[in-house]
Amino acid sequence: MVLGKRSDYGDAKYAGVQVPFSDDIPKTVESYGLCGFDFVVAPLVRDSWRPPAPAVPENGSLPSPLNRSDCLYINSSQWANQVVGAVSEWIQPDAADPAERQRSTAALKAQLGWAAHLGLQAVVLPPPHAPGRCPNYAGVLNQALQGLTHMALWLTVPLIIPTSGATGGVPDGADTAAAAAPAAVSPVAGVGGLDGWEAWHQVRAQCDHHNLLGAALLVGPALPSPSSLRRWAGEPVKALLLPTAVFTANKRGYPVLPKGHQELLAAFFKLGVQVVITGGACHAVPAPAAAAAAGPGSKQVTPAPAAAAAVGPGGEPLGFTVTDPGESHPLRPYWEYLCFLFRRLEVVGEQERQEASYRDYLQVPLQPLQDNLESQTYETFEKDTQKYTLYEEAVFRALKDRQAAEAAAAGPRDPLDPAYATDAPKPSTSGRPVVLMVVGAGRGPLVRASMRAAARAGAALRVYAVEKNPNAVVHIQHMLRTEGWTEHVTLVSADMRHWQAPEPADILVSELLGSFGDNELSPECLDGAQRFLAPGGISIPQSYTSFLAPVTTHKLHHDVKAYKDLEHFETPYVVRLHRHYLLAPTQPLFTFVHPNTDAPIDNARYDSLVFKRDPADGAAVLHGFAGYFECVLYKNVLLSIHPPTHSENMFSWFPIFFPMREPVYVPAGGEVGVQVWRCCASHKVWYEWALSAPVAGPIHNVNGRSYWVGL
Amino acid sequence: MVLGKRSDYGDAKYAGVQVPFSDDIPKTVESYGLCGFDFVVAPLVRDSWRPPAPAVPENGSLPSPLNRSDCLYINSSQWANQVVGAVSEWIQPDAADPAERQRSTAALKAQLGWAAHLGLQAVVLPPPHAPGRCPNYAGVLNQALQGLTHMALWLTVPLIIPTSGATGGVPDGADTAAAAAPAAVSPVAGVGGLDGWEAWHQVRAQCDHHNLLGAALLVGPALPSPSSLRRWAGEPVKALLLPTAVFTANKRGYPVLPKGHQELLAAFFKLGVQVVITGGACHAVPAPAAAAAAGPGSKQVTPAPAAAAAVGPGGEPLGFTVTDPGESHPLRPYWEYLCFLFRRLEVVGEQERQEASYRDYLQVPLQPLQDNLESQTYETFEKDTQKYTLYEEAVFRALKDRQAAEAAAAGPRDPLDPAYATDAPKPSTSGRPVVLMVVGAGRGPLVRASMRAAARAGAALRVYAVEKNPNAVVHIQHMLRTEGWTEHVTLVSADMRHWQAPEPADILVSELLGSFGDNELSPECLDGAQRFLAPGGISIPQSYTSFLAPVTTHKLHHDVKAYKDLEHFETPYVVRLHRHYLLAPTQPLFTFVHPNTDAPIDNARYDSLVFKRDPADGAAVLHGFAGYFECVLYKNVLLSIHPPTHSENMFSWFPIFFPMREPVYVPAGGEVGVQVWRCCASHKVWYEWALSAPVAGPIHNVNGRSYWVGL
Repeated sequence: MVLGKRSDYGDAKYAGVQVPFSDDIPKTVESYGLCGFDFVVAPLVRDSWRPPAPAVPENGSLPSPLNRSDCLYINSSQWANQVVGAVSEWIQPDAADPAERQRSTAALKAQLGWAAHLGLQAVVLPPPHAPGRCPNYAGVLNQALQGLTHMALWLTVPLIIPTSGATGGVPDGADTAAAAAPAAVSPVAGVGGLDGWEAWHQVRAQCDHHNLLGAALLVGPALPSPSSLRRWAGEPVKALLLPTAVFTANKRGYPVLPKGHQELLAAFFKLGVQVVITGGACHAVPAPAAAAAAGPGSKQVTPAPAAAAAVGPGGEPLGFTVTDPGESHPLRPYWEYLCFLFRRLEVVGEQERQEASYRDYLQVPLQPLQDNLESQTYETFEKDTQKYTLYEEAVFRALKDRQAAEAAAAGPRDPLDPAYATDAPKPSTSGRPVVLMVVGAGRGPLVRASMRAAARAGAALRVYAVEKNPNAVVHIQHMLRTEGWTEHVTLVSADMRHWQAPEPADILVSELLGSFGDNELSPECLDGAQRFLAPGGISIPQSYTSFLAPVTTHKLHHDVKAYKDLEHFETPYVVRLHRHYLLAPTQPLFTFVHPNTDAPIDNARYDSLVFKRDPADGAAVLHGFAGYFECVLYKNVLLSIHPPTHSENMFSWFPIFFPMREPVYVPAGGEVGVQVWRCCASHKVWYEWALSAPVAGPIHNVNGRSYWVGL
Repeated sequence: MVLGKRSDYGDAKYAGVQVPFSDDIPKTVESYGLCGFDFVVAPLVRDSWRPPAPAVPENGSLPSPLNRSDCLYINSSQWANQVVGAVSEWIQPDAADPAERQRSTAALKAQLGWAAHLGLQAVVLPPPHAPGRCPNYAGVLNQALQGLTHMALWLTVPLIIPTSGATGGVPDGADTAAAAAPAAVSPVAGVGGLDGWEAWHQVRAQCDHHNLLGAALLVGPALPSPSSLRRWAGEPVKALLLPTAVFTANKRGYPVLPKGHQELLAAFFKLGVQVVITGGACHAVPAPAAAAAAGPGSKQVTPAPAAAAAVGPGGEPLGFTVTDPGESHPLRPYWEYLCFLFRRLEVVGEQERQEASYRDYLQVPLQPLQDNLESQTYETFEKDTQKYTLYEEAVFRALKDRQAAEAAAAGPRDPLDPAYATDAPKPSTSGRPVVLMVVGAGRGPLVRASMRAAARAGAALRVYAVEKNPNAVVHIQHMLRTEGWTEHVTLVSADMRHWQAPEPADILVSELLGSFGDNELSPECLDGAQRFLAPGGISIPQSYTSFLAPVTTHKLHHDVKAYKDLEHFETPYVVRLHRHYLLAPTQPLFTFVHPNTDAPIDNARYDSLVFKRDPADGAAVLHGFAGYFECVLYKNVLLSIHPPTHSENMFSWFPIFFPMREPVYVPAGGEVGVQVWRCCASHKVWYEWALSAPVAGPIHNVNGRSYWVGL
């Protein structure tokens, strides 16, 4: 049963429950299913099972007490969808005793083999020992991963590894190892314990960041700082393991979570991470009222008023009103509390909902200069009304400023002066119509925005719409006829870099920006077009700046790696970043100003940035860099996809992602240094990028060998 | 409106109609849509449109009368789903006059650019001139294809190119070219004209078999021979263009098709090819009865009795009973006749329906010897009851033969002879239980089949079930307990090649065959197991033979090519062949017999085959070879996936496909020669293959560098 039918968080969220060993899995699945849980995490073998000693000859030996019979009561798809296997907790592939190590290794292999045979979707693995102290465990997992095609391994990772006691089933021997962890592993700020992230990173780095290895975060009663928790947003977290012991009781005895835990769950729900309840019921809930009163837990919490409305057509009844037989299950109040938290999530905005299918999906940037865009692409961009409202405002203010300046400069006018007797179609207050050129007019949205601005400003405009795509021009022709603008707008089917304008422009309007500002060659195009800008003329935009930040994004790095070539690691991608984490705040990189008065003009750039991590945030992994831009259209009319200043409701651009060939470990309090070049040649422009800290790395995309933008 | 809601032919089939130029495309789409057609094939520009002369300066010139306005009345998805563009028929990129050639080339580029801008799904291109006489046309198409991402080009291909007159819009100049076509292009047998396939092949070969280039077959009143028509089954045919003039009239004046045309349409419907009606209505249908009486056309045709039953829930009303406003449309009787033909197709069998999603989908063969299969894979195989019925029958006959032989050899028995006082659990009529070993027992289906056969034969069996996958053995254990067979069946968790059997076997049963018979190393496994076969013992299977045939399959070749590496061209694939054509009947290749009494045993093989094409079938293209096997389980109990002898309702194996690196042209009456090696080394077995005719080609997969099966 899903926690709530809400389409705004994509897939409905599922909840699981850890159960003891059972010889009758179908019955177990059914009983917890009635209670509300969608899947069970069940041991693969009896707790007492041990693999046969290696001395037993292979010849004819029966396969040991792995022997169980439930496999025949349940079909493959049920196994795959409703059961996650749990590997025995006693397994210690890094035990000091060689015999114990051998037995653990054999048992781990046998259990993983059995789970894969059953076609399970995932298996939960015992927690690793202290960071760097489980090489054999990582080795066995790495070998197993090579043979898997779809079954995922969920490594249990305690958010905090206690330094004073054992975690989970790790016996005494391991404590010593944990206590003797390398000095590089810092304790998590504010909590007495080791950083679970470090243990996770050691294992997954040894497994070469294999995509079937994920983390099941074990949530304890104490939480690390919110800022260090945020690192997990970019990691392949598959589940939260939530012990019932972490719940507290509200006044009426119902299990509820402390505020920090509530926020943790909300954050992971939004990332699509499922929750698994572990341990038995340990809150005495008054039996008869159980189904009616769950939810309103701690004081900050009030039940969603329109609970019923959240249920979609055909949806399952929700926790608050159900009367099914499962409601008497002792774990029912915990499940209902999860429902309550899930349904309380704020509603997702329309724009974000539409973008959901693009989340963490790599797109190669457009090359509008080299290729003609399709009609549908224009159609999509034109739907971004917010962007054109900003352009209209920019043109309006520029026209107003011109009017003010002309009025001031002209002083009192002599109406008989022949200079004022122009034959402009609709003389503005300043006499001469303003010459405005839209360069890269597409299907005409900026022509429309400019005409609107002129009407508002009471200014007469003479517009030139310059567009190199002959197919797009057909649409502008139609617009001019429909709107009655044929007298005011001259249509030019030409490349702005080569066109010979018949008169100078007062205002040059363009929308040539990419996700990284200059990456679709706006600087080169506008440098070419400014030939026909009158002295003192205005370019809209006036300037733009790119921003960069180091980022953790396991998903994107894996997707790039899946291409199995260098080229894709040297290509920047347009991506709606979702499961990601910025290791530090963004910093500005390259700025371009228009018109460009430099002589000679040089659009090549080089800069290096250093990002410093707060030691309290712990170590993290770097997969590449996220890029954004801010653009000054005109004076204080800003157009931005830079998170701190992002223009509201504007969706024309997703961020850009520059990958690194190899993920890089950034120690707690460490620095990330990056160098970026914008290189220009006669027929192409490209970026090169390299890491300078915490370690120097290879320069990516040298000579634009993998990625470039054609001029 | 779909022609009929039938799930058994996969996607519902769609019908289109060619329409004249219209300035109001939405209205055109609507009017033909009411008539029943799902899409229109519409000219991209007015017939009078010509591109601007190249002398006109680019600077500011307006984009010529390509100028149309309907693009703004209809959104992108409507353009994409309901309109196929038609390129002007006057275009002749290979005209003798250089100016005309230049104008044609410019017009073709402009129209393709416009269509791509609109986001159309496909564009119909004018027919090519005689084969080999349109190099510039192919050149322009090839350049255009490089820039396309999803829009398909449908080249109009007349099935027969008339030698006495022009095809379609090709003017006089081209006739001369057609008449002077190279001698290699043979006329199609029985019809006075050139083979349209040759013209198609020339163009698509020059376009390097680009996947966005397909054929729209123009069906004339006369058809080539059925055997030459079959070549198109393996080609990327996207549509049939069916002129109304090809229809004849039945007694009541309704348009119907001759029998040969009916069969042609039926064959292409089954391949998922859509039909486009071209030309105006040219049959005088009695107006009032039009909707009620369509369909029952020529004498061979009787309307499907349960017409209404073929409509799925929520389905559109079908032609016979509709009363919508479109039924008075002059083309309505033609559309209804298409419906009639489509709905008359024979019902697809359950097995083929289940296999529909695997059609023409490349799968890398299993390596069950090297990898352990998953439970689900066993589960799927075990559903093939027909296969196990054949095995049961084979074991039954072998047991019966043993009983007969023993009875004959023993003569009258002395009941006091101590040799007969065995302690077998259930003495059979012949006294001693038969020792039967299942090698590669999996989850036990052959154990079950053998026990059944023994019960039928009244024979006592002592069974050994040998299986190397320890996870599968768990299932057999359960089966033995459930069936009460623990006393009769000994479970052996071991590799048959290394196991030391405690006694010799009378019968050795195995199912180790792959799609090509020996390709999953059945010979090597059984050679290893025959150590413990008693002298005179029986192997089930007794022998198997692989078969090969040259094949046309554009789809599979493209899918292999899409990997962009050599390795995938040197890998055989398991495929449910669908859109394919065998260039000649299959021929046997390698045979293996068990037990193998050769000394020494050598499972390496080499053979070369020559396939001769009937000159009347025309030329064809070779993409690789299709492989099958026939297996003698015991005497006349045959198990086969070889088309002429395929075991009924058996679905465990799809054919195998050996690709060629490059498609090869096979002239009419030509030969296809192929050499195949089965190579064996200590740890692997692999195939190598090469073409010897019509041209010698490189040996594929030398030293098993790309594909091998591990021992």
